[in-house]
Amino acid sequence: MSVDFQQLAVAGVRGLKPYQPGKPIDELARELGLNEADIVKLASNENPLGPSPAIIDAIQQQLVELTRYPDGAGFELKAALCERLGVSASQLTLGNGSSDILDFAVRVFVNQGDNVVVSQHAFSIYGLVTRAVGGEVIEVPARNFGHDLDAMAAAINDRTRIVFVTNPNNPTGTYSTRGELEAFLAAVPEQVLVLLDEAYFEYAEVEDYPCGLDYLSQYPNLLVARTFSKAYGLASLRVGYGVSSPVVADLMNRVRPPFNVDSFALAAATAALRDDAYLAKSIAANRQGMVQLVAAFEQLGLSYIPSVANFVTFKLPDGSDDREVNQQLLQLGVIIRPVANYDMPGYIRVSVGTAAENQTFIDALAKVLA
Amino acid sequence: MSVDFQQLAVAGVRGLKPYQPGKPIDELARELGLNEADIVKLASNENPLGPSPAIIDAIQQQLVELTRYPDGAGFELKAALCERLGVSASQLTLGNGSSDILDFAVRVFVNQGDNVVVSQHAFSIYGLVTRAVGGEVIEVPARNFGHDLDAMAAAINDRTRIVFVTNPNNPTGTYSTRGELEAFLAAVPEQVLVLLDEAYFEYAEVEDYPCGLDYLSQYPNLLVARTFSKAYGLASLRVGYGVSSPVVADLMNRVRPPFNVDSFALAAATAALRDDAYLAKSIAANRQGMVQLVAAFEQLGLSYIPSVANFVTFKLPDGSDDREVNQQLLQLGVIIRPVANYDMPGYIRVSVGTAAENQTFIDALAKVLA
Repeated sequence: MSVDFQQLAVAGVRGLKPYQPGKPIDELARELGLNEADIVKLASNENPLGPSPAIIDAIQQQLVELTRYPDGAGFELKAALCERLGVSASQLTLGNGSSDILDFAVRVFVNQGDNVVVSQHAFSIYGLVTRAVGGEVIEVPARNFGHDLDAMAAAINDRTRIVFVTNPNNPTGTYSTRGELEAFLAAVPEQVLVLLDEAYFEYAEVEDYPCGLDYLSQYPNLLVARTFSKAYGLASLRVGYGVSSPVVADLMNRVRPPFNVDSFALAAATAALRDDAYLAKSIAANRQGMVQLVAAFEQLGLSYIPSVANFVTFKLPDGSDDREVNQQLLQLGVIIRPVANYDMPGYIRVSVGTAAENQTFIDALAKVLA
Repeated sequence: MSVDFQQLAVAGVRGLKPYQPGKPIDELARELGLNEADIVKLASNENPLGPSPAIIDAIQQQLVELTRYPDGAGFELKAALCERLGVSASQLTLGNGSSDILDFAVRVFVNQGDNVVVSQHAFSIYGLVTRAVGGEVIEVPARNFGHDLDAMAAAINDRTRIVFVTNPNNPTGTYSTRGELEAFLAAVPEQVLVLLDEAYFEYAEVEDYPCGLDYLSQYPNLLVARTFSKAYGLASLRVGYGVSSPVVADLMNRVRPPFNVDSFALAAATAALRDDAYLAKSIAANRQGMVQLVAAFEQLGLSYIPSVANFVTFKLPDGSDDREVNQQLLQLGVIIRPVANYDMPGYIRVSVGTAAENQTFIDALAKVLA
């Protein structure tokens, strides 16, 4: 046949580069001749504590329902979220991870030829989901690796439908202060959705960090996205949520597939919300691990970007090749994330692991840089 | 604020009715004052056998990885599928249920103003996902409740991008024969994607039922969608897949969120593919249950649509009100699915349950109709 389906795809998809997933750890172990158990993965900002017993228990109880469809309304998880957050169920959208929330927002509000505003060094999925629907991406230069919210507000034009604000930001760990966010929200035109991505908010223990939910009543154009993948330790199960005005949530739920969050994910997230001890332990462990990593960077004479999240990004010595350093760390069984594709060549992001994992990384890094 | 976000949504979403999920069983039990354990749910074409021990075991082994992200490439599940189906990994798209596959296809190929062709009485999600992107739906009248494939091919026009064929069809249980499907594939223009939805194919034990995979090498415009939710008993975990030409699969994977299938789902589906005993048992139990249900309809003098799937749709006596019958069955603890919203008022779809569940349904139906 002579038909080229590539050319039959909608314009946005035609221009997308296929997603290149990372190799599974077991494949990497085989390739490098390493023992799987010896590999330390500090590449995906995962919770290093391992599973919470209370959550394991909730999952076990779900096994008997394996053959049954999930509750498409997410009744119990929404009830738990309402109780915890002080919002109404009509404000909630459940996602297969918070990336679903970003995707739904774009599909609801961005027409072909519309645009979204993002910051330099921000999460790459914003651009991907926007281009998929034929939208354009206006990238605003960062300020000290963080969002320049004034410049982002100024970049909005009459085809702008969404501004993405990540707080704290991934992969830089920077944050916007309460004052900065408030000035920004006041400056954004009321017909432009502000998507405030708070995937890492639980880790931000600084005084002037703003909680996005506080602004929902004042700003019907605000949508806050959160996830259970990080501090709650549920990355494997994919649960996130959006909180917004009921009108926006209603629209989001129209494009949400009815069973996007599975039964195990619903049960685990519901249990996680009630598992205060695990959350507290996660945050405390992260605080300690961050101190450990930062001390090592200082000892090694490496500059780093101060982070309020569960990862920290540091700069290799001038003249180092980030791909080469990455390859050498892999040989030593340490997986981290070079962030050259975030417009940060020479920088590497490392997730905060357990004390032992952090030490393995520090020792390997010292060895590679020596 | 005066801005109405409802009016700011893209045209397709603006016209969508929000999805109305069913009530959880526990809520229904509370409402009707019933014991949860006494409720028989034959409404969602779920596998009545309950979980397979081998799959439970695979899930248990996954618990230790709770805090880690899934393998976005689905390496092991794809390897198992390749082995089982005799296809290459480049032909596969993994979905959060097969509904993801339908959604991706529409997002890849349907522009605003394009259309898709569906059959009357076909799965409602085809229309929903199409309208969400501003596409139009051409519905072709059914023939004896089944697809009229000749008429569907004839309905294709120059804005048609996808034809949805469900084989066997839900909610009618009808099927297209090998000869009918072959004539149809030959008649469809090569630039139109044929999405062959085989969610129920494992149950179709008739001689002239065609296997969609057999036509992939001849028709690069064919995409076969399948699911683990039915015969494999994994509805709670949401796993489906598409098989197509590598070009179509590449496009599908561009809109696929990287972690749309979670770690538990990947592990369970991989185990399920190797669990031949469970699959055989599911199919045998369905065959027996279908005999039981059909015998009861004949005894009750009810006409039904002969089905090759794991459900059967029957007609209430003239003058019966399907909503009233449904309500009375609910009072007796039996949940079935009236299909008036599928353009079939007076018809009810019942899933094949265990022998005991089927008998509970039969007794309740006889009581209500008496």
